[in-house]
Amino acid sequence: MKTFGFEVLHQAPDCGARRGRVQTRRGDIETPVFMPVGTQGTVKAMYPETLKDIGAQIILGNTYHLFLRPGHELVQKMGGLHGFMNWDRPILTDSGGFQVFSLGDLRKIDEQGVQFQSHLDGSKHVLTPESSIAIQEALGADIIMAFDECIPYPATREYVIDSTDRSTRWARRCREARRKDDGAALFGIVQGGMHEDLRAQSVQDLIDIGFEGYAVGGLSVGESAEVMYQVMDWTMPLLPVDRPRYVMGVGTPENLVEGVSRGVDMFDCVMPTRNARNGVLFTSFGKISIKQARYIDDPEPIDPACDCYVCRNYSRAYLRHLYRSNEILSSMLNTQHNLHYYLRLMADMRQALEEGRFAAFKKEFYQKRQQDGGA
Amino acid sequence: MKTFGFEVLHQAPDCGARRGRVQTRRGDIETPVFMPVGTQGTVKAMYPETLKDIGAQIILGNTYHLFLRPGHELVQKMGGLHGFMNWDRPILTDSGGFQVFSLGDLRKIDEQGVQFQSHLDGSKHVLTPESSIAIQEALGADIIMAFDECIPYPATREYVIDSTDRSTRWARRCREARRKDDGAALFGIVQGGMHEDLRAQSVQDLIDIGFEGYAVGGLSVGESAEVMYQVMDWTMPLLPVDRPRYVMGVGTPENLVEGVSRGVDMFDCVMPTRNARNGVLFTSFGKISIKQARYIDDPEPIDPACDCYVCRNYSRAYLRHLYRSNEILSSMLNTQHNLHYYLRLMADMRQALEEGRFAAFKKEFYQKRQQDGGA
Repeated sequence: MKTFGFEVLHQAPDCGARRGRVQTRRGDIETPVFMPVGTQGTVKAMYPETLKDIGAQIILGNTYHLFLRPGHELVQKMGGLHGFMNWDRPILTDSGGFQVFSLGDLRKIDEQGVQFQSHLDGSKHVLTPESSIAIQEALGADIIMAFDECIPYPATREYVIDSTDRSTRWARRCREARRKDDGAALFGIVQGGMHEDLRAQSVQDLIDIGFEGYAVGGLSVGESAEVMYQVMDWTMPLLPVDRPRYVMGVGTPENLVEGVSRGVDMFDCVMPTRNARNGVLFTSFGKISIKQARYIDDPEPIDPACDCYVCRNYSRAYLRHLYRSNEILSSMLNTQHNLHYYLRLMADMRQALEEGRFAAFKKEFYQKRQQDGGA
Repeated sequence: MKTFGFEVLHQAPDCGARRGRVQTRRGDIETPVFMPVGTQGTVKAMYPETLKDIGAQIILGNTYHLFLRPGHELVQKMGGLHGFMNWDRPILTDSGGFQVFSLGDLRKIDEQGVQFQSHLDGSKHVLTPESSIAIQEALGADIIMAFDECIPYPATREYVIDSTDRSTRWARRCREARRKDDGAALFGIVQGGMHEDLRAQSVQDLIDIGFEGYAVGGLSVGESAEVMYQVMDWTMPLLPVDRPRYVMGVGTPENLVEGVSRGVDMFDCVMPTRNARNGVLFTSFGKISIKQARYIDDPEPIDPACDCYVCRNYSRAYLRHLYRSNEILSSMLNTQHNLHYYLRLMADMRQALEEGRFAAFKKEFYQKRQQDGGA
């Protein structure tokens, strides 16, 4: 069994950015990395082979959704999530906490865990740190996330303290529940809201427990980009240099570039996939909405600077037609383009870091957006 | 410019079945052939490359839909339907007649053509034999169909006579409108309802006009399989041996085998693609509905005898999960499997014809369905 590990290959001299490699039992992951989200055992509108073609190294699965449907025991019986969905590269699963806490009135928290009702059929369930770990193990995740509360924003300082303390106690229970010597990693999740001292306390508490990697949770919850970057600025320098750092649920292309600048190694977000299905496409000059009338007879590809399959073969006019006609191929092509954009952006950042020109890359990234007047 | 042509390579000694080759300006088509339907400029849920991978030689486009959205002039400007949708193999377009006549109260027929209202926005339009040809030419079809009425079933003999006579007059106008020396072919469409003498008259009238191929229309409109085969039995022997024969809108796997037995060279039908999106899958032992509870933990592929990408990589349990979760990948995988089934069935028939064992193939085809007790 290959052991989980992480090494920093290059460190930028003038910012926190670093080029690294995560070793997992299912192969290496070159970082910084973006992880496409596969909520229900599929990255929506993508064949697994196409995901590989565009360079996806690892995908994310959602414990809450898979627990409710089709159920982790069924997935385990069918060869785990990898066998079930025909994906042989690493998978990271979230803990289910984020979705359960999003249920609002349908859930009740106590020290033991969270009682909740399914959004599908109203059936009652309980998630605890122990059961979250057991479910993620049954799914066969290569990276398992601790069960925590993603604190809403805004929140009172008192709420943030109580919630973060409970998440820390739950993190310890997750660590204890993760006894299997199966090569999978467990990541702790830093909380602490938008408060510097509480973030620092959370980091220290999690380091004391000890995890194979550290995530920063509670971001991309409605705060401004400045606040998000501020929290990254506070948190990243406190995290162990020799462990991967993952900012959960983030974000826009700008967020990725700023996160990498601050030393983030891993990201996930539904933005490229969800936006794609809504006709919003990412380009080197900003976002475009393919449904707009201006594209009706536009023979250009989505992004003339893009070398993806979609941009090599289809016009904006065709993509607008597919979107307006509610064709499934619209979601397929838009998703492929957007994920290619995100994965290519990460690959470009990795290359810039290897070549010691990350600062120049970042400058150029922002210049392109201004020059071409994208949204 | 390569000329359109057809040659019979093998003729079965004991039935009408024949192995042939259609030559078009965009390459050859080995017959008998099934043409996947790409109504709105896409075969739903399929990348063009995947269509090629599973052996699609030619696809069908719908003139009515493309005329209304995005419009044939736009498609022409964008490089024709081939360039627009990234498909470089042959395309056959229907005439728009079938869809226009299906509009019921929204259309009005006279000698000149059909006035109708768009199902999209109620806007008023006219299709005539001349405009149908012009639209199909603008789309860039390699095989153009004559504008006719698909007679409803049942219909009075009087209605069938009047309608068929008008379709014949329209067929002559289509022939006259098709003056371009561009290598595209024009097919006439035999009508005549379920009457032997009227079918024979229609065939003779169309032969007198002269077409590059002959289609049989007005089937798969609610008649029994016996009636469908009876009409094929009447019609096929009257059609020129040296021209391709196309039965429109047909059908089930059994219909294809029976059609080939009677000398049909070309088929199209939405059945494999539409059924796929509804979770109905074709197998060597009959149809299955993947939504059924019996498949909840079934680790088997859709059809253990199938070698398609879907059957090599996914379980019935996973496909049921995708279907129940309304995932786009459900339509993608189900469509790929069903089209593979149809295209493989045609390839198997072609091979059996080449090897002089079509009768044995047909016997085995029916035996498999009985043995394994499929639906």
